[in-house]
Amino acid sequence: MKSETPKPLHKICGNEMINMILDSCQNAGLSPAIIVIPENSDQFESVTRKKIQYVIQKQPKGSGDALSQIKQLSEYENIIVLNSDIPLITPSTISKLIESHIESNATITLLTSIPTENKGLGRILRDDKNNILSIIEEVDVDSQTRNIEEINVGAYCFQSSWVSQALKELHPANNGELYLTDLIHIASSQSQHIESVKLNDSNEGLGVNDRAQLVKLESILRTQINNKLLLNGITIIDPKTTYIDQDVQISKDTTINPNTHIKDGSIIGSNCVIGPDCTIQGSYIGNDCVTISSTIEYSKIYDNVHIGPYAHIRKDSILEKNVHIGNYCEIKNSHIGQNSKSGHFSYLGDARIGKNVNIGAGTITCNYDGSKKNKTIIEDNAFIGSNTMLVAPVTIGSNSITGVSSVITKNVPKNSKAIGSPARIFKTDQRKHR
Amino acid sequence: MKSETPKPLHKICGNEMINMILDSCQNAGLSPAIIVIPENSDQFESVTRKKIQYVIQKQPKGSGDALSQIKQLSEYENIIVLNSDIPLITPSTISKLIESHIESNATITLLTSIPTENKGLGRILRDDKNNILSIIEEVDVDSQTRNIEEINVGAYCFQSSWVSQALKELHPANNGELYLTDLIHIASSQSQHIESVKLNDSNEGLGVNDRAQLVKLESILRTQINNKLLLNGITIIDPKTTYIDQDVQISKDTTINPNTHIKDGSIIGSNCVIGPDCTIQGSYIGNDCVTISSTIEYSKIYDNVHIGPYAHIRKDSILEKNVHIGNYCEIKNSHIGQNSKSGHFSYLGDARIGKNVNIGAGTITCNYDGSKKNKTIIEDNAFIGSNTMLVAPVTIGSNSITGVSSVITKNVPKNSKAIGSPARIFKTDQRKHR
Amino acid sequence: MKSETPKPLHKICGNEMINMILDSCQNAGLSPAIIVIPENSDQFESVTRKKIQYVIQKQPKGSGDALSQIKQLSEYENIIVLNSDIPLITPSTISKLIESHIESNATITLLTSIPTENKGLGRILRDDKNNILSIIEEVDVDSQTRNIEEINVGAYCFQSSWVSQALKELHPANNGELYLTDLIHIASSQSQHIESVKLNDSNEGLGVNDRAQLVKLESILRTQINNKLLLNGITIIDPKTTYIDQDVQISKDTTINPNTHIKDGSIIGSNCVIGPDCTIQGSYIGNDCVTISSTIEYSKIYDNVHIGPYAHIRKDSILEKNVHIGNYCEIKNSHIGQNSKSGHFSYLGDARIGKNVNIGAGTITCNYDGSKKNKTIIEDNAFIGSNTMLVAPVTIGSNSITGVSSVITKNVPKNSKAIGSPARIFKTDQRKHR
Repeated sequence: MKSETPKPLHKICGNEMINMILDSCQNAGLSPAIIVIPENSDQFESVTRKKIQYVIQKQPKGSGDALSQIKQLSEYENIIVLNSDIPLITPSTISKLIESHIESNATITLLTSIPTENKGLGRILRDDKNNILSIIEEVDVDSQTRNIEEINVGAYCFQSSWVSQALKELHPANNGELYLTDLIHIASSQSQHIESVKLNDSNEGLGVNDRAQLVKLESILRTQINNKLLLNGITIIDPKTTYIDQDVQISKDTTINPNTHIKDGSIIGSNCVIGPDCTIQGSYIGNDCVTISSTIEYSKIYDNVHIGPYAHIRKDSILEKNVHIGNYCEIKNSHIGQNSKSGHFSYLGDARIGKNVNIGAGTITCNYDGSKKNKTIIEDNAFIGSNTMLVAPVTIGSNSITGVSSVITKNVPKNSKAIGSPARIFKTDQRKHR
Repeated sequence: MKSETPKPLHKICGNEMINMILDSCQNAGLSPAIIVIPENSDQFESVTRKKIQYVIQKQPKGSGDALSQIKQLSEYENIIVLNSDIPLITPSTISKLIESHIESNATITLLTSIPTENKGLGRILRDDKNNILSIIEEVDVDSQTRNIEEINVGAYCFQSSWVSQALKELHPANNGELYLTDLIHIASSQSQHIESVKLNDSNEGLGVNDRAQLVKLESILRTQINNKLLLNGITIIDPKTTYIDQDVQISKDTTINPNTHIKDGSIIGSNCVIGPDCTIQGSYIGNDCVTISSTIEYSKIYDNVHIGPYAHIRKDSILEKNVHIGNYCEIKNSHIGQNSKSGHFSYLGDARIGKNVNIGAGTITCNYDGSKKNKTIIEDNAFIGSNTMLVAPVTIGSNSITGVSSVITKNVPKNSKAIGSPARIFKTDQRKHR
Repeated sequence: MKSETPKPLHKICGNEMINMILDSCQNAGLSPAIIVIPENSDQFESVTRKKIQYVIQKQPKGSGDALSQIKQLSEYENIIVLNSDIPLITPSTISKLIESHIESNATITLLTSIPTENKGLGRILRDDKNNILSIIEEVDVDSQTRNIEEINVGAYCFQSSWVSQALKELHPANNGELYLTDLIHIASSQSQHIESVKLNDSNEGLGVNDRAQLVKLESILRTQINNKLLLNGITIIDPKTTYIDQDVQISKDTTINPNTHIKDGSIIGSNCVIGPDCTIQGSYIGNDCVTISSTIEYSKIYDNVHIGPYAHIRKDSILEKNVHIGNYCEIKNSHIGQNSKSGHFSYLGDARIGKNVNIGAGTITCNYDGSKKNKTIIEDNAFIGSNTMLVAPVTIGSNSITGVSSVITKNVPKNSKAIGSPARIFKTDQRKHR
C-alpha cells in the first residue's frame, strides 16, 4: 500500500476494511473475534469499534505463524479464519461457509472464487475427482497451473483440534514465512475431508494489495449502496458521483444531486433535495429539507429547513422547523428556533436563537474574547439589523431590535431597540424596525 | 418507483418523462394529445406545458381499459398510442412508425426492439412467415418464448375504427386488468394486417420501472446531449460530470469544466469558461464570460463578465458588460452597470447600480425593514467604501463616495462624500476616496 | 474542431497537444524541433514553452507540402516526423521508432497500430510477404481494404536524403493537397526498405479530429496519471472525478477527495487531505494539510495548515505552519505567520501578518483607495476584533488589540488597544481583548 497506515485500516466508503469484516462477522452471528496484529500497532485498537481481542505476532513470519499465535484455538470446536483484506465478504457468505463446514463435517472448508483475472492469486489445485489437493501461490505456478481459474479467497473454516496440530507441521517457505495456505496440502496428504464453497459474485472475494484495488472495491461498494437506495425510492441523479456511507439512511422520494457526500451514519428524511455539492456528516435531516452546495457536520436539522448555497453548519447545531439559512452563513454549536432566518453572511456561534428571529446580513456573534468562547442568546421575534456585532456573553430580549451596524455589548431587554456603537437601548412600545 | 409522484412525472435531465414524450410528439408534427390519467392526479396538469386533453381512468384496470376511456377515438382515422415510460423515443421514430402504418395500410403497426436484456419485457411472437401473432408478457413466457429477443416497446398505431371495436373484445387478465397488448392477438386471430417497425438503437426504446432504470436513461440522454455539444465545438472536460438540460444552447469555443449544471433553457455564448462547480439555471450568459464555482439563477449576464468563485447571482439580476463579481457576493434582483465591480463579500439586493461603480468589501444593501423590501440606487462612478450599510430606500448620487463602515440612511447627492454612522454628507469638488 | 483555436493548441489535462508532443520528443532526447504552422498563427509561439523553430506553410496544401517547407531537411541524416494530433505518444515509443529505423537502416520506418475502430484512419496495405506497400486513406478504401486492421498512426522516420527528393515526386490528391502518406507508396514502388513499429497499446496512437476524441484522450491520460499516483501510495477516492495535471507531484499517504483539480505543477506533501471540491493551481502545499471545498491559486502553504470550506487563497500568498483559514476567507498576496488564524469572513489583501495573530470575523483590509492598492501590516500576537476595518496603509503593532467594529485609519503601536470609528488608541499594560 506504500503507506504508514496498516493495510486493514485503509477505508472503503468511509469504513476501515477491518471494521467491514468485523461487521460482517457480527451480522453473521459470530463472536468473539480475535485479531492477530504486528507489534506496535496501537492504531488498530483506536479504530476497531467492537469488543475485540488482540493477539500480537512479534515477527512477520507469515499467516500460518499468525494463526499459531492464538493459544486458545483448541477451546473451540471449529474456527473461521478470514484474511483482513477481503472487505466485501458478506454475512451470508460467512454463514454459508460455516453451515457447509458443519454439515459436511469437513476438516477444512474454504471459500473459492472464479474472478475475471487470476493473476497474483492462489490457484485451487484439484484432482480428477474434483478433490482439492492444494493452493498454488503465484510464485509457484507453472505452465500447467497458471491458467487454473478457481482461486483461494482467503476465508477458511477449520476443525480446531486438527488445525492446532497441523500448524506445527508447517514448513517455512523460501522467504522464511509459514503459509496458512499450506494447511490445505497437509490436509489432503492426510486424506482429510476438504470442502469448498464457491462465490456467486467474484467481486465479493476481491482482495486489496494496492490503492488501485482499494479504489476498485470502493467503486463496487458505492454502486451497491446507491443501487439499493435507488430501488428503495430515492432518486440519485448520478450514482457515480454520489458518495454515501453504508450506514446512512435515506427515506423515500428524496433526491440526491451529483457530487454529494453523506457520511457517518447520517439520517435523511423523505422529500428532501440534497446537493449538488453537499457534504453531510453524522447529521440528522428531517423531511422536506433543501440543502444546496453546503457543508453540514454533526447537526440536527428539522423539517422544511432550507440551507445554502455555500452555508456551513458546524458541529452540535440544531435547526428547528422552517428555518432558512442562506448563502455564506456559518452556524456553530447553536440552536435556531422555528421560522427563524439568517439569509446572508453571518456567523452564529455558541448561540441560542428563538423563534421567528430575523438575522440581518453581516451579523456576527463575537463569541471569542481571546481566551474563551461566550454565549449569545436571541429571544423570540427579535430583529437583528444588518452588520450587528453581538459581543458575547449577551442576550437580546424577545421582540427587540438592533440597529444597522450596532455593537451590542450589554443585554438588551425585551421590547427594546439597541442603536449605535456601543449600542444605547431604547424602550419601544411596539415593534418598529431599525 | 416507490414514490408519491406518478411515474410519468419523474424527470430525466430536468424534464418530466411525460413532457419528453409530448415534446417528441409535437416535434413529429402530432396534435392533439390526450393523456389518460388516474383520478386525483392534478400534478399532471401543473406539470405538462402543452395544450393537452386529460381523460380520467377511474379504476386502475390496465392499459386496455385506459385507452377505452377515450370516447372520441373514432373521430380519427388512425391513432398513435405511446406508453408514458419510454421517454427517449425520438420524433423521427414516431414519424417513421406513422409513415409505415399509413403506407402499409395496416390495422396495427407496433414498435419493436432487440434490447441487450429482454427480461421483464413483452416478447414479440411471430409465425414461420414472420407475421406477428401476439405479445407474450413476462408472466406468460415459457421455455420456448423466454429467449425471443424482439420485444414490444410500447408504441402503436391503430386504425381507429378497428381499435374502437376491438377494445370491447379484451378479456381481463388474472389480475382483472385489460391489456392493450392483447389487441395484437385479437388482430392476428382476425387475420388483420399487423406491421412493425424495429428500432435501430435499442436504447431509444428503454422503459422505466424503477429509479435504477430512470438513472440509466438519464445517463444515456446526458451522453447524447454532451456528444452533440462536443461535436458542435464546445469543450466539455468531463462529459460524465456535466449535467446539461436538452433545451440549453451553448456557442462555439466555450469550455465547460467538470461538475457543472446548466439547466432550464439557459443560453451561453462563445468563448466562455463555465465551471468547475457551477449551477446555471434559466439564465442568459454572453460571450467571453468566466464563471467559477458559482450559482446563477434566472439572470442575464452580458459579455466579458467574470463571476466567482463562490458567488451567487439570484433571480432577476442583470450584469452588464465587463462587470466583475468576486468571491462571496450575492446579487439579487439587481441591475449592475458596465464596468462595475463587487470584488468581495457583499449583498446587493433590489439595487440598481450604474457604470464604473466600485463596491467595497462587506457592503450590504439593508433592503428589508422587517416588513418590506426597499430599493437601493447607486449612480455612475460611485465608490462605496468597505463595510458600507446602504439602508434602503436610498440613493447614492453619481461620483459620490461612502466612507468605510458608514451607515447611509439618507440619499447622498452626486459629487458628495458620506461618512459616519449615521453618515453625514460633505460636498466634494473632485473625487477623493474615503 | 469547430474552433478559432488551431487543433494542436487544444489542451488535454491542462497541456496543449503540441506541448505534449514536444515534451515527449525532449524526453526521448530529441532536438531541435521544427514546427510547420499556417500563416498568422502567432498563438503557437505564445503557447509553446520550448525553444522551437517555426516554419510557415503559406497555403494549406497538405502534410506533404508542409514537410517540404523545411529547407534544411538534408542537413540531417534522418528525421522524425510527428503529426501534431497524437498527443499520447510516449518518449519510449519515439525512441523505439528511431532505434528500429537506425538499426534496420530503413528508408522509412512508420508507427502502426491496431485500434478497436479503424474507421477514418489510413490503412496499412501489405503484400504477401508482409512488406508495406502503401497507406490507403479512408476516402480510397474499397471493400477489400476497408477491414484492414492495421492503421497508420502518423509518426515516421525518414532518411533525409531520400525524403528530400521524394517530396518532389508527390502528386496532388483530388482536393489539391500533397499527402505525406503517399511517400510510402513512392518508396515501395522504388523497392526502398520500409520498416514499421507496432504500438502495444493502441490508445497511445489515438488521434484527435473533434472534441469528442479530445475528451476521450483526456479521459485516458487522466486514468494513467491517477493510476500512477495510486500505486505510489496516494489515496484517490474517485479517480474518475479527480483532475490532476501530469506535472503535479503528490507525496505518500495524502488523500484526494472527489471533484478536485490539481494543476499547473502544484506540489503536495504527505498526509494531506485535499478536497472534496478543491481547485489548486500552481501551488506548493506542505505535509499534514487539510483543504476542503476551497480554491488555492499560485500560493505557498506550509505544514499543518487547515483551509476551508469555501476559502479562497489568491495569488502570491504564503501561509506559514499551523495557520488556520476558515470559511469565507479570501487571502490575496498576503503572508500569514505561524499559528495565526482567520476563522471566518475576512478579506486579507496585500497584508503581512505575524505569528499567533487572531483575525476576527468580518475583518477587512481596505487595501484599495480607488487608485492604488495599499499594504496592511499586523505584527505578532495581535488580536483583531470582529468587523475591524484596516484602512491601508496601516500597521497594527505586536500584542495590540482592535475593538469590535473599529475603523483603523492610523498605525496602532504595539501593546495598544484601538477602539471606535475612526479608532482612538489606548496604551495597555497587559493584553486584554476588546
